[in-house]
Amino acid sequence: MYAITIPEPGGPEALIWSEVPDPVPGEGEVLVEVVAGAVNRADILQRQGFYNPPPGASPYPGLECSGRIAALGPGVTGWAVGDEVCALLSGGGYAQKVAVPAGQLLPVPEGLDLKRAAALPEVTCTVWSNVFMISHLRPGETLLVHGGSSGIGTMAIQLAKAVGAKVAVTAGSREKLERCAALGADILIDYKEQDFVEELAKATDGAGADVILDNMGAKYLDRNVRALAVNGRLAIIGMQGGIKGELNIGTLLGKRAAVSATSLRARPLSEKTAIVAAVREHVWPLIDSGQVRPVVDRELPMSDAAAAHRVLEESTHVGKVLLVAP
Amino acid sequence: MYAITIPEPGGPEALIWSEVPDPVPGEGEVLVEVVAGAVNRADILQRQGFYNPPPGASPYPGLECSGRIAALGPGVTGWAVGDEVCALLSGGGYAQKVAVPAGQLLPVPEGLDLKRAAALPEVTCTVWSNVFMISHLRPGETLLVHGGSSGIGTMAIQLAKAVGAKVAVTAGSREKLERCAALGADILIDYKEQDFVEELAKATDGAGADVILDNMGAKYLDRNVRALAVNGRLAIIGMQGGIKGELNIGTLLGKRAAVSATSLRARPLSEKTAIVAAVREHVWPLIDSGQVRPVVDRELPMSDAAAAHRVLEESTHVGKVLLVAP
Repeated sequence: MYAITIPEPGGPEALIWSEVPDPVPGEGEVLVEVVAGAVNRADILQRQGFYNPPPGASPYPGLECSGRIAALGPGVTGWAVGDEVCALLSGGGYAQKVAVPAGQLLPVPEGLDLKRAAALPEVTCTVWSNVFMISHLRPGETLLVHGGSSGIGTMAIQLAKAVGAKVAVTAGSREKLERCAALGADILIDYKEQDFVEELAKATDGAGADVILDNMGAKYLDRNVRALAVNGRLAIIGMQGGIKGELNIGTLLGKRAAVSATSLRARPLSEKTAIVAAVREHVWPLIDSGQVRPVVDRELPMSDAAAAHRVLEESTHVGKVLLVAP
Repeated sequence: MYAITIPEPGGPEALIWSEVPDPVPGEGEVLVEVVAGAVNRADILQRQGFYNPPPGASPYPGLECSGRIAALGPGVTGWAVGDEVCALLSGGGYAQKVAVPAGQLLPVPEGLDLKRAAALPEVTCTVWSNVFMISHLRPGETLLVHGGSSGIGTMAIQLAKAVGAKVAVTAGSREKLERCAALGADILIDYKEQDFVEELAKATDGAGADVILDNMGAKYLDRNVRALAVNGRLAIIGMQGGIKGELNIGTLLGKRAAVSATSLRARPLSEKTAIVAAVREHVWPLIDSGQVRPVVDRELPMSDAAAAHRVLEESTHVGKVLLVAP
């Protein structure tokens, strides 16, 4: 098969479409013939040499895909060759075939194009595990989503609205904010022009956000804590604004608030399986019914993954960028 | 009645035993004739002028007491005049009488001296709400308790052992550590002589603490995060080591860990009522059976509250210091 390899870490040009050996599904795994993969920020870090695949994972980038089951490894039940699926991966999604534990498979939602299903696993699992399983967003509460027009952001808006929460978003342009509004976002904050702590306070009568989904890390830490409501929960899933930040424990304690930080990729199989099962139970019906849809910015040929990385690095996209396998 | 008043914030001598008007129980409150109160660190902050009582609370210090119900306010059911109780207070425990919402009352556990019951409300509610309701300590997990010989610490050790957890403690002397060991602590760390991150790692094969109960705040923040296990939870309940600290979000994210910070006093009645109900359900049976006992360092006359504050400030005590009302 062919896969995107990274012979030397570097810029987008480091991504090389090469012939490599087919993966072999192990115990409890299936082999998926990939129709499409999707791009995540972690892939860029991996390309740059800053994010090595966890032990046992494919050396190729790609944390999600859609496709058809081509073979079953030993001990797999509940799935058959030919099934159309999408999957959460520990790597290897930028390839024509990938081996994946059966617990990380999801059926393709009703009425959804197989290709577009590749846009779902990372965003649904990340949003559900952080906003709902860890931070317990409840109906009537306010969720603040940083980067509302990203793949994660566009899914977080829709899922939070589906459970009856109010949604505030930050984004870097009026156009991106309008796309967020079209998905249901109630409070729109242009982070280049406005202070999100102040804008959120205005829009919530001073109450703040019950849950914040943050991809910035250190740069936003103090402001996020200030933007939290009493009993608020800050869920950090990225560190695009740095690793070490000052935490005002006095502010946190005065609000009886909490800060969590997670990544999906490093979780053991048992935790991924539990998250995928929860997503299938709680999120999939919303997608089957059409209430929640993946937001796809564009599709590019997988062999030109470099172009897809440039899109993410320029941050001109809204939603997910797909890589279509040949 | 008489109560400890604070005409001017200051040292222990600022605490003045004075004649004041009796409190009147409002809707849903009872009047308790106080037999004993107990001292908390927050009382010292209040004495120093750094911790004003929340709106509506008694102006006198004292966050817990034991005694007998002397009168019922309108709308109180389930309690009768003469009942022996202990109570979580928003203030006013350093007094001969105090009005308290019925939801913050607990019966005196079986076989326990009425006076000693004054040692229970703050420590049981603080430990249960933080270690169990927020941080979900589970059987087989490891709890690290800073200040293991404090009132909070001595209760945290016992409750964690009662649910089948392993307990590590820090304290400032061999004698205090031995008292912690007698209560069940498994891992003893002298913070004046040893590095708790290193000692905990040694004692847990590098795994770290699943839950940390911390009273130090900023001073320990970085070390606490380093001492956490994967999926670990740091519960901050005090800031004796400062308010602002550097949070390494990268370390937190790598461990999929969380930091919470709370105080009990500022919670609204509904949350206090829920905590007291949970304590009555889960903790009281352990005290009724004698498996868990309050640890009382000494009893002093309430009129000499200054002496009790000096004991806490010198930190020579183990467990709670009681104030016996005349």
